[in-house]
Amino acid sequence: MNNKMNVPLSGIIPPLVTPLLDDDVLDVEGLQKLIEHLIAGGVHALFVLGTTGESQSLSYKLRVEMIKNTCRIAKGRLPVLVCISDTSIVESVNLACIAADHGADAVVSAPPYYFATGQPELIEFYENLLPQLPLPLFLYNMPTHTKVNFAPSTIQRIAENPGVIGFKDSSANTVYFQSVMYAMKDNPDFSMLVGPEEIMAESVLLGAHGGVNGGANMFPGLYVSLYNAAKNADIEEVRRLQEKVMQISATIYTVGQHGSSYLKGLKCALNLLGICSDYVAAPFHKFEQRERGKIWKALQNLGVDVVLR
Amino acid sequence: MNNKMNVPLSGIIPPLVTPLLDDDVLDVEGLQKLIEHLIAGGVHALFVLGTTGESQSLSYKLRVEMIKNTCRIAKGRLPVLVCISDTSIVESVNLACIAADHGADAVVSAPPYYFATGQPELIEFYENLLPQLPLPLFLYNMPTHTKVNFAPSTIQRIAENPGVIGFKDSSANTVYFQSVMYAMKDNPDFSMLVGPEEIMAESVLLGAHGGVNGGANMFPGLYVSLYNAAKNADIEEVRRLQEKVMQISATIYTVGQHGSSYLKGLKCALNLLGICSDYVAAPFHKFEQRERGKIWKALQNLGVDVVLR
Amino acid sequence: MNNKMNVPLSGIIPPLVTPLLDDDVLDVEGLQKLIEHLIAGGVHALFVLGTTGESQSLSYKLRVEMIKNTCRIAKGRLPVLVCISDTSIVESVNLACIAADHGADAVVSAPPYYFATGQPELIEFYENLLPQLPLPLFLYNMPTHTKVNFAPSTIQRIAENPGVIGFKDSSANTVYFQSVMYAMKDNPDFSMLVGPEEIMAESVLLGAHGGVNGGANMFPGLYVSLYNAAKNADIEEVRRLQEKVMQISATIYTVGQHGSSYLKGLKCALNLLGICSDYVAAPFHKFEQRERGKIWKALQNLGVDVVLR
Amino acid sequence: MNNKMNVPLSGIIPPLVTPLLDDDVLDVEGLQKLIEHLIAGGVHALFVLGTTGESQSLSYKLRVEMIKNTCRIAKGRLPVLVCISDTSIVESVNLACIAADHGADAVVSAPPYYFATGQPELIEFYENLLPQLPLPLFLYNMPTHTKVNFAPSTIQRIAENPGVIGFKDSSANTVYFQSVMYAMKDNPDFSMLVGPEEIMAESVLLGAHGGVNGGANMFPGLYVSLYNAAKNADIEEVRRLQEKVMQISATIYTVGQHGSSYLKGLKCALNLLGICSDYVAAPFHKFEQRERGKIWKALQNLGVDVVLR
Repeated sequence: MNNKMNVPLSGIIPPLVTPLLDDDVLDVEGLQKLIEHLIAGGVHALFVLGTTGESQSLSYKLRVEMIKNTCRIAKGRLPVLVCISDTSIVESVNLACIAADHGADAVVSAPPYYFATGQPELIEFYENLLPQLPLPLFLYNMPTHTKVNFAPSTIQRIAENPGVIGFKDSSANTVYFQSVMYAMKDNPDFSMLVGPEEIMAESVLLGAHGGVNGGANMFPGLYVSLYNAAKNADIEEVRRLQEKVMQISATIYTVGQHGSSYLKGLKCALNLLGICSDYVAAPFHKFEQRERGKIWKALQNLGVDVVLR
Repeated sequence: MNNKMNVPLSGIIPPLVTPLLDDDVLDVEGLQKLIEHLIAGGVHALFVLGTTGESQSLSYKLRVEMIKNTCRIAKGRLPVLVCISDTSIVESVNLACIAADHGADAVVSAPPYYFATGQPELIEFYENLLPQLPLPLFLYNMPTHTKVNFAPSTIQRIAENPGVIGFKDSSANTVYFQSVMYAMKDNPDFSMLVGPEEIMAESVLLGAHGGVNGGANMFPGLYVSLYNAAKNADIEEVRRLQEKVMQISATIYTVGQHGSSYLKGLKCALNLLGICSDYVAAPFHKFEQRERGKIWKALQNLGVDVVLR
Repeated sequence: MNNKMNVPLSGIIPPLVTPLLDDDVLDVEGLQKLIEHLIAGGVHALFVLGTTGESQSLSYKLRVEMIKNTCRIAKGRLPVLVCISDTSIVESVNLACIAADHGADAVVSAPPYYFATGQPELIEFYENLLPQLPLPLFLYNMPTHTKVNFAPSTIQRIAENPGVIGFKDSSANTVYFQSVMYAMKDNPDFSMLVGPEEIMAESVLLGAHGGVNGGANMFPGLYVSLYNAAKNADIEEVRRLQEKVMQISATIYTVGQHGSSYLKGLKCALNLLGICSDYVAAPFHKFEQRERGKIWKALQNLGVDVVLR
Repeated sequence: MNNKMNVPLSGIIPPLVTPLLDDDVLDVEGLQKLIEHLIAGGVHALFVLGTTGESQSLSYKLRVEMIKNTCRIAKGRLPVLVCISDTSIVESVNLACIAADHGADAVVSAPPYYFATGQPELIEFYENLLPQLPLPLFLYNMPTHTKVNFAPSTIQRIAENPGVIGFKDSSANTVYFQSVMYAMKDNPDFSMLVGPEEIMAESVLLGAHGGVNGGANMFPGLYVSLYNAAKNADIEEVRRLQEKVMQISATIYTVGQHGSSYLKGLKCALNLLGICSDYVAAPFHKFEQRERGKIWKALQNLGVDVVLR
């Protein structure tokens, strides 16, 4: 592991969108701007090729380009985490090796997502995967997409293996998250991260280490401030900033319908903010003019200057 | 409304178990002990005939007895909320009238739970129900059991009607709960309550008004202390007490299998604590000796003196 | 058991709608017309207070009236089955006793539907229920509404008890239905009935005994003919009639949205056919003029004379 | 399209298991034996890289080998269908081109399975995919794995595009399948295929064109006979053979637990029958000795000679 990554990994680790010019063309310039924007905003690490990064919608060639370019641009200024979730263990290992070769600091893996797995199968899968990985691993819980929840005891069991350094939960179920926190309470170096930004503050107040929050692509400083307020138990400031976060959630992520609203809204806003292209890979499409207008208005209501392109 | 109930209703409002001697026989003595135990523990109101109260498993005759006895024993010392959730609107109104006749302070209603309803149907249902109710109403979100989530905009819309004074969420999804909090932020008198005790503290830290927490049947003082710590933003104390709450959740509620573990464990523990009978109504059964031994050990690990019967 | 009911019960057993004048007022005249219409159409038995009968939306008083009036009108001309599904075992037994008192021939029970039950809990529930029942029992599988599927081995086990005479499956999953058929293949007197009319014919072709088909409320003769064609392995006739059944399914049941389209469409059509009121109990509502027009057109396309009211 | 493939494609099209020696090593000899076994059994086409073929668990390199070897071995003796389901449209097109290059006759595509798609997104996805495909397309409905059901109207709409020649449904919901049959009734050349072997016969009796049935890997002759009996409306023979199919389903596919029982049982049986290796790719594992003994006994109860290895 790269010596710049402290344990437990803490803070705001944005799940980068993958800026695209087409289904199979990376927007390299946009990625450069995005990373500089995030570093300027004070984020603590970068996380690429996650759900927000549309990894599954991208060809392997493009995933590799994304890893390569992110590591090149980040230049060791902060840790880079690469998501290697795949339905094929062979392809997961391939991606992990490529990540290591380009200087990434850790990998992140959600369970295979075509077949639904049981708990013993999850344990076997990770005990099979771990020895093949050249980098430390974060487990990633994403039950709506993978059809399985890591049981707290499954996480305990997998974490007994060397190289498992943290857990990211995107279930939105904080009863579950609290159960995992309780199960891992004797492993203070095990990083507990929460996906949905709407519940990052309350999770950090109760002891979580940070958030992998999509909105930090747009407003890294806001999420870093909210994280700091929660870490410092400054409740008044937490509530003030939480309202901004909820305003983003209630406006930017709810235009249109279907599960893809979050992704389309986020990419559209990043484009309006002058950061990167808003192209969304199949099976989705970027917003048309009408939805774009709504995002524009939402940004203005947030008091944000918008770069109209 | 009874003048003793402040708005917004705040604090710990335990969802009382219904002490039973048989499928259709109330354990009146147990109920008496339970209520005195709760009042001595400092709880802020009583909530009867909810999910923890096994309402749906009880005959109407028994539900009426439970309402009558609770109101008689509570004697106006604290507000009494009665859950009237039913698949039949006629029976819901019947229960509400009986609750009012015996001096209850408010009613609570989850959507009809046999047919799954859509959002417009939810609005129509409550706009149909409300004028027939003699008491103010809390909405109750329980999607695993009712097959529907109140959309935040549905709650806003229903709450425009007079008599809707709060919302209890048992979804365990705090992204959702934060969305409702945000949607209702301009109604400071609207009570926002959270069901699962594992997330009561974090919800109150972020602005919720209290919890309808099953564990408070056993240890009312613990949950009241945790509520107070959260209300006072005493994070250190919150984390100390939260660990106790998680220990309860991880031990008392996880013996046996199927969704009924929570209920069986709770009633078994109440019996071991000398409070009331552990009979569980069909379709469930109380724990046998082996599971009972596990609950007994869990209580001892919590440092609780157990009254062996 | 009434001696007029042969085993295994076979044929078309319509799940009667409950004709209503208001949420708590039975349309007795409509019920009379409906039953005469069904008997004239050649159906083999009547099934009341099922899902199509909106049982859960009705008060107990009304459920009793429905039982009483149905038995009175049917006058022993064909078997009457009464659904006693409830969340409370006490109320289920009450309904069964009332059914027996008025001369019904059998009861039907789906699992309690508020709490989700596991398989051992299902077995216990029915072994607890059975000795309390004065009439023979059909098990009723309705997983979308009860949150549980009877495992084939659970049905085998429950059916070892005396008094269990059949199974009605509304899962729409014919892989499952075939598994139950196979599990019960050595009990030739055990009646295997299928709920959805769209798959009645294919189920009967493979050996099922009949259908509890909602559309038979409107067109009893059509479903009886289809049943007979399937029973006689007249494939050409099956396919011809199946197309009519699918036309009904694709038009009458798909107006509007939400799960309630089937019920609203069916009651609206019955009203247009001059049979009974189209009032739908809360949480649903009858169709407005616009939807009513679509049902009217659908009936005309089916070549049916409509009695405009 | 290869001129040997008639429209609509009809009959038994086994979804081939992918014989493996390790997670990334094809059992070429086993594949050869399997294909000869299937052709000798009279199947009407071959379908590779479907769910039974564990496609998602395999590296792209291995998927390509599977396509190449299957086409080489089949040598045009019967049509070869290649499943190109992927989360990335770019990789789907890649696979389709490779399939065409090696002489496959058609491709099959289920919706992207990481993100859940809505109906309009499904239409867009396929209207985007179709012009990039060098071979005709079958749509593949697999809602448990892809999180979405093709609405009948969505299929109608997609099928208006040239090159869409059929539909394979693995939902097990025959109400749904009948709805699609009804929606497509005016396209007699559109092939309607059903996945689960337990319902192939009844679907063909009602007009479907055939089955993509996993059990045909083991006993191709049995499934071909059942198909022929159904096609010829020989109900007595259908019922006789259906009982064999149900015996297979109730024994070979139910050893062990979790969703993977079917796959593990099928591969274990193929191994015991002397056809190919029983290696199952991660996240699953092949059966251990104990489960293997049960499959062995199940085969003997079926009256099958087993080649013990």
